[in-house]
Amino acid sequence: MILTVTLNAALDVTYQVPVLRLGHSHRATAADVRAGGKGINVARVLHALGHETMVTGLVGGDTGAAIRVDVLAAGLREALFDMAGPSRRTVTVVSGGTATAVNEPGPPVSISDWADFVGGYHALAARASVVVLSGSLPPNLPDDAYAQLIRATTTPTILDTSGPPLLAGLAARPSVVKPNVHELTEVTGLDDPVSSARVLLDRGAGAVVASLGPDGLIAVSDTGSWRVRVPEELHGNPTGAGDACVAALAAGHALDWPDRLAEAVATSAAAVPCPLAGDIDPDTYARLRPAITVEELDAHADR
Amino acid sequence: MILTVTLNAALDVTYQVPVLRLGHSHRATAADVRAGGKGINVARVLHALGHETMVTGLVGGDTGAAIRVDVLAAGLREALFDMAGPSRRTVTVVSGGTATAVNEPGPPVSISDWADFVGGYHALAARASVVVLSGSLPPNLPDDAYAQLIRATTTPTILDTSGPPLLAGLAARPSVVKPNVHELTEVTGLDDPVSSARVLLDRGAGAVVASLGPDGLIAVSDTGSWRVRVPEELHGNPTGAGDACVAALAAGHALDWPDRLAEAVATSAAAVPCPLAGDIDPDTYARLRPAITVEELDAHADR
Repeated sequence: MILTVTLNAALDVTYQVPVLRLGHSHRATAADVRAGGKGINVARVLHALGHETMVTGLVGGDTGAAIRVDVLAAGLREALFDMAGPSRRTVTVVSGGTATAVNEPGPPVSISDWADFVGGYHALAARASVVVLSGSLPPNLPDDAYAQLIRATTTPTILDTSGPPLLAGLAARPSVVKPNVHELTEVTGLDDPVSSARVLLDRGAGAVVASLGPDGLIAVSDTGSWRVRVPEELHGNPTGAGDACVAALAAGHALDWPDRLAEAVATSAAAVPCPLAGDIDPDTYARLRPAITVEELDAHADR
Repeated sequence: MILTVTLNAALDVTYQVPVLRLGHSHRATAADVRAGGKGINVARVLHALGHETMVTGLVGGDTGAAIRVDVLAAGLREALFDMAGPSRRTVTVVSGGTATAVNEPGPPVSISDWADFVGGYHALAARASVVVLSGSLPPNLPDDAYAQLIRATTTPTILDTSGPPLLAGLAARPSVVKPNVHELTEVTGLDDPVSSARVLLDRGAGAVVASLGPDGLIAVSDTGSWRVRVPEELHGNPTGAGDACVAALAAGHALDWPDRLAEAVATSAAAVPCPLAGDIDPDTYARLRPAITVEELDAHADR
């Protein structure tokens, strides 16, 4: 079972408008409401790929009840914990191929709700083959909240977060971290993604997989470094591509690095044609997967 | 008592973000949730001006319950009717001085919920000194839904809507219609607001007050036509200015036209410094009101 952790789960509302213009009013032509937060989206992709998953995290209020209902409706198993505050919403406006999002920060988590969650997490993580920890932290949790969970985990962990929670998480030695190139630049201050990835490796990550958007990804581990490109240009909604990438990295934890990374790029690209995060298009995956080549980078040349 | 009708009431969610950029994700720094829909905003302004009001319309679901709670929290009296579908939400993102809105269309209203409302409306309108009918119609109501209510009303009516419901409403002879200049152009196809207003007068409106945004308003009735300018440039959120204008027109229904229009412009301008629709700033009103002059237009010159 692959456990996905979503500490700041959300009710994701997506509106379609023909043309979004700043400073104007728009009538939404379609609205979709679903359970979100990166960990839940990762679990959706894993479920679509045929893997046994378990969704955990903290939910509360009417929005939390709606998240639980939607997680079950998606066929996912959940061990979500109750919190006193209402779960946040996110609002995404899709117009043409462009997605503009406004995310609520989420409610603070009380000390007793957090203690209940941490206790329950230990038991869940002990039964998991891989643990995925994704997304932002509720506003009052300390930056090392993910580090605390990773230290309590004996199975491989994949951490997909940004900023101070990412930096603090490295100290707990996650097996893989998956920042995107902007998040990488933000935490290291370096422009070059391979150099940046090596900084995170030096600070404790077992491996760093950095998504470069339409340019694919680079990965650095103790055993090598690789660059994987997307073989064609894709149009759609890139919002869920990072979560699909993480799902493939979790599903492929027993593969060798080149195969694992090719799976990650094909799965990530297969999310782009889908309007909603958490969905993947099997035809895109099947078309792209054989065309993906993995280039080994010369570690000495760019050190 | 001034009755305000909001057939498509909404839970208005307003987010503040430092800079809104299309195609990007944003963390909202503040979120405000309040009962909205133009009629409810008109009632808020009337209440702030010291007038007795009653809010009616249709609400349903969790969002409808939240609308009722917030209407009462604002000190407004309500006679809202239940409907089966959940009330809609609107989402406004305020960034700098710019407001970008996405509005859900709202649920369809069942025939029996509409019949219950119309029956209750008759009793409420009979006790009102003025009835204000504001905003869009739920998606399945016929274009002449406002016309149906106006025909059943013996007291003065003010209709603030757009498109087909505005055109259909004219046949029921509302006392005043208040389109903005864009809505006026949309329904008449004419660029000149005074000529457009005369078209609506000919089609049944008792008077037409057209808001021109920062340029004030023009008004045309059987007894004359006027132009009123805003004496200074104002910065802020113009979203609620139209509702404040309608509130002043309702409150001033016994005044002569020049005074009524000057009140409408001062009250409308006093909404602009306020971040939320339905609020007005008394200092702005007090500063501007004495400086407003009303220019009588020569009806023959521009016929």
